[in-house]
Amino acid sequence: MVRITYDQLRAACQAILERRGMVPGASSACAALFADATRDGVVTHGANRFPVFVAQIDAGDILVNAVPVLEQAMGAFERWDGRFGPGNLNAARCMDRAIELARANGIGCVALRNTNHWMRGGSYGLQAAAANCIGICWTNALAAMPAWGGRDGRLGNNPLVLAMPGDPPVLVDMSMSQFSYGKLQEYRLNHEKLPVLGGYGEDGNLTDDPAAIEATRRVLPIGHWKGAALATILDMIAAVLSGGNTTADITTDFPRETGVSQVFLAFSMDRIGPDGSWAGTVERIKDYIRQSEPAEGTSPRIPGERFGAIRAANDRDGIRIDARIWEKILNL
Amino acid sequence: MVRITYDQLRAACQAILERRGMVPGASSACAALFADATRDGVVTHGANRFPVFVAQIDAGDILVNAVPVLEQAMGAFERWDGRFGPGNLNAARCMDRAIELARANGIGCVALRNTNHWMRGGSYGLQAAAANCIGICWTNALAAMPAWGGRDGRLGNNPLVLAMPGDPPVLVDMSMSQFSYGKLQEYRLNHEKLPVLGGYGEDGNLTDDPAAIEATRRVLPIGHWKGAALATILDMIAAVLSGGNTTADITTDFPRETGVSQVFLAFSMDRIGPDGSWAGTVERIKDYIRQSEPAEGTSPRIPGERFGAIRAANDRDGIRIDARIWEKILNL
Repeated sequence: MVRITYDQLRAACQAILERRGMVPGASSACAALFADATRDGVVTHGANRFPVFVAQIDAGDILVNAVPVLEQAMGAFERWDGRFGPGNLNAARCMDRAIELARANGIGCVALRNTNHWMRGGSYGLQAAAANCIGICWTNALAAMPAWGGRDGRLGNNPLVLAMPGDPPVLVDMSMSQFSYGKLQEYRLNHEKLPVLGGYGEDGNLTDDPAAIEATRRVLPIGHWKGAALATILDMIAAVLSGGNTTADITTDFPRETGVSQVFLAFSMDRIGPDGSWAGTVERIKDYIRQSEPAEGTSPRIPGERFGAIRAANDRDGIRIDARIWEKILNL
Repeated sequence: MVRITYDQLRAACQAILERRGMVPGASSACAALFADATRDGVVTHGANRFPVFVAQIDAGDILVNAVPVLEQAMGAFERWDGRFGPGNLNAARCMDRAIELARANGIGCVALRNTNHWMRGGSYGLQAAAANCIGICWTNALAAMPAWGGRDGRLGNNPLVLAMPGDPPVLVDMSMSQFSYGKLQEYRLNHEKLPVLGGYGEDGNLTDDPAAIEATRRVLPIGHWKGAALATILDMIAAVLSGGNTTADITTDFPRETGVSQVFLAFSMDRIGPDGSWAGTVERIKDYIRQSEPAEGTSPRIPGERFGAIRAANDRDGIRIDARIWEKILNL
């Protein structure tokens, strides 16, 4: 592990992107999205993912200067084509557009096709919250999870993000599998069992052994049949609204997980609740949860509130990242 | 158990509602929602719930002829006040309005406050699908599930519904708890263990013993921390968008679970995909799932597809309901 500053990470990423021909305004925004995720502790979708992102640029899977184009507009809803541009920039632009539409109409929605992995989905929820909007977005993905009643991967983990403005904002950023493959690997390398059942072993029974699940690739959807159902319909809605690829299409035709479909929804609280009294409603919910009787060895949590402390610590002490990842980034 | 016809059930409910003063058009629609849910096999939110609904009318919790009124309109988004009217009629009217808004704008959304239990949430998803709309809706509820890290009930099970038009439509209708208290009771009365872990026992460990969970009332959210987070933010969004009550407010001030907040979203496929080619996208996803390798003793499932067969069987053979429930209804 090494400690680096936010500015070091961002500048390094920006320079690397510019060497790949990304235009300066875009490179700065793209690098900031990677650095922001890393600073918030979401290293898997920040620094750790950056070398993969650059490899996808080098392979021609991600077109550095492609920008989304409007395909169909109907008031508060628009359809855009991401033209295989950088997934995080495409997502940020489409959430921006959803916010603009929400400021005009109360609600705004953009469906985006032919885009790429958006890295940390929570980024776009926080972006909406910073604009005083409720943000909801989701993406489909490569098949990595069995359908309910099936054995082989047929569903994406299809992360779903919901955010409520506030200080700090409330942020839910969850994939439809109980654990990602990255998490399974992390537990295995640490010689730890999973904290809860995470998938099926060779014998067809649920297990908390990460290696057994990595072997079968039968990861458990959240809530068993419920998460499988939710993953299925989120894929359907994203593909149908955007006119883009389904998890089936991506897995069959874009096995390097390009050309995904996403949905961005915003509700403008400047329009819907201009007197700001709604913020008291949010606080009332937080207080009610905080006043609950703590469970064994823990205390009640508000989704997303931990990021403020992580960010502050990382700003103070530097951001811890894997030394090999940092070395790899410096050599890109 | 007795077998009754759809028409018997609907006519009985309608007559009972009219004896409570519900105006004829409303009574017919309200009775149909109860009969439809029952015919689809969702008896818990159909016939079994009808006596509770009537008791709430008799207690003055539900105002039979109150209709929702528009409070705030901004293009594709509207805020309505349900004025403590019948929850299923209020919900159907607001989904209807969301569909109208979607036909004009691509997307439409109604947030509804001061309404009552909507009975079967899936009804409003199916209603959107029948109008060739993607429908998304959710409700908050009385606290019945601990927050993550807490022991006592602080979150509603806050059912979330998503529907995709088609024949049959795809329908996801899921609450945020792995099992409802009704389901726990059903397993206990049948002397069965739950099929998967459903909550915490007296010792603070997860268990599949329904009676142990009924005793602690620590039901498990779907996906553990994920479902708790999702329940929290769905409550926040419903209350903030509608200007209505939170789960905290309902539990504190309306312990008979009245005055809840709901959100209804529709996307009109007549507007967004007038050539109908999107239906092929939905079929592609269904086929991809159906072609998956079946798991032990089962086969891959498409969410909601089972309702067609249940409905057909109930139309052919009559609807099975508990004899005591039918007796109770006939005496209302």
